[in-house]
Amino acid sequence: MTHRLEKAMGHTFSDASLLHTALTHRSHSAPHNERLEFLGDSILNGVISRQLFSRFPELPEGDLSRLRANLVRQDSLHQLALSLALGKFLRLGEGELKSGGSQRPSILADVLEALFGAIWLDAGYDIASAVIVRLYDKMLDAIVPGKTMKDAKTRLQEYLQGRRLPLPLYVLIGTEGESHAQQFRIACQIDSLQIQTEGKGASRRAAEQIAAERALERLIES
Amino acid sequence: MTHRLEKAMGHTFSDASLLHTALTHRSHSAPHNERLEFLGDSILNGVISRQLFSRFPELPEGDLSRLRANLVRQDSLHQLALSLALGKFLRLGEGELKSGGSQRPSILADVLEALFGAIWLDAGYDIASAVIVRLYDKMLDAIVPGKTMKDAKTRLQEYLQGRRLPLPLYVLIGTEGESHAQQFRIACQIDSLQIQTEGKGASRRAAEQIAAERALERLIES
Repeated sequence: MTHRLEKAMGHTFSDASLLHTALTHRSHSAPHNERLEFLGDSILNGVISRQLFSRFPELPEGDLSRLRANLVRQDSLHQLALSLALGKFLRLGEGELKSGGSQRPSILADVLEALFGAIWLDAGYDIASAVIVRLYDKMLDAIVPGKTMKDAKTRLQEYLQGRRLPLPLYVLIGTEGESHAQQFRIACQIDSLQIQTEGKGASRRAAEQIAAERALERLIES
Repeated sequence: MTHRLEKAMGHTFSDASLLHTALTHRSHSAPHNERLEFLGDSILNGVISRQLFSRFPELPEGDLSRLRANLVRQDSLHQLALSLALGKFLRLGEGELKSGGSQRPSILADVLEALFGAIWLDAGYDIASAVIVRLYDKMLDAIVPGKTMKDAKTRLQEYLQGRRLPLPLYVLIGTEGESHAQQFRIACQIDSLQIQTEGKGASRRAAEQIAAERALERLIES
């Protein structure tokens, strides 16, 4: 059963008990994955730092830190966990299982980190690093330094698609000002998450981007 | 001149420009060490995590995190930087030099992290890891799990002394319970940092330790 997971991650464990522990939530039994998560969090940080350092030789430390924070936060890990269908492989206690624990972003993100830690122990730094880089490849490629604002609508769309949620609705609320200096007010509605934000701009498109950016901020905070 | 530093760290650079950059403060010239510090911070975190994970197989994740925070904080790095006489090798701008920058704990700690990052780039993960483990060896050996709590007051005192800040004030806020089962409530006040925490315990001393521990946690978080 876990073969499919190993294949998706691109690593077959020599020590299957490490894989087992990484998939075991504390609600299920001991040994559970929290120590591995501690380890995995730290290798993830290192590998992403190294990638950002090499890929963006012109970026100052502050920008690198911000990019790293984006990539290692729960949200990004959760997206990757979904792409691996991690939820199917979890070992959860009965209570957690019933309350939908196998879908919980925090649980899925933690398990993915634990898997990174387990691979580090199983096969060493370089192999674990390669697994992480492969998984993060698209996210790393998508980074355009200083241009994050531009793609707010795209990023929001991907965020929602990754969660199989309906796409946002952009609604013109009104216009302001004379026709040569018109301002558009657009609402971005995500009904499934009960989020509505607003953006104002010189074009519909600009206003939509701002509204989408605000929606992303709300999603990230929550 | 930097030979002595390389010898003390146990690594001779293939690419001397990396060493050079690691020792260069932003007040001096570009390229300076801030990007390397970003990198070094992340490998330090990984190497220490791995050491703690292996050395303390019984410790839960929370304890490992606390121990790691202790080892990678400025204070510990500063101590190691002093043992390497790092101050002598820094390249500082004139203003920083005159105002005693080569003694400043934050500058010294940052340079040591930058050196870790530089060695990682110069020679790979395993060699950088070996350098870090060798440097931290005594600090790692000195850890006695479960005994950290005992010294919270001492650790807090050292933390503040290292920053030339006034010592904390421990104030009895009140007592609770009958005389044979009395509970003491103590406040730990660090006015210079606008921190005040509380501890409760069966003796004044126990309550002080708890209050000091909470103050340390606040300092580490900030």
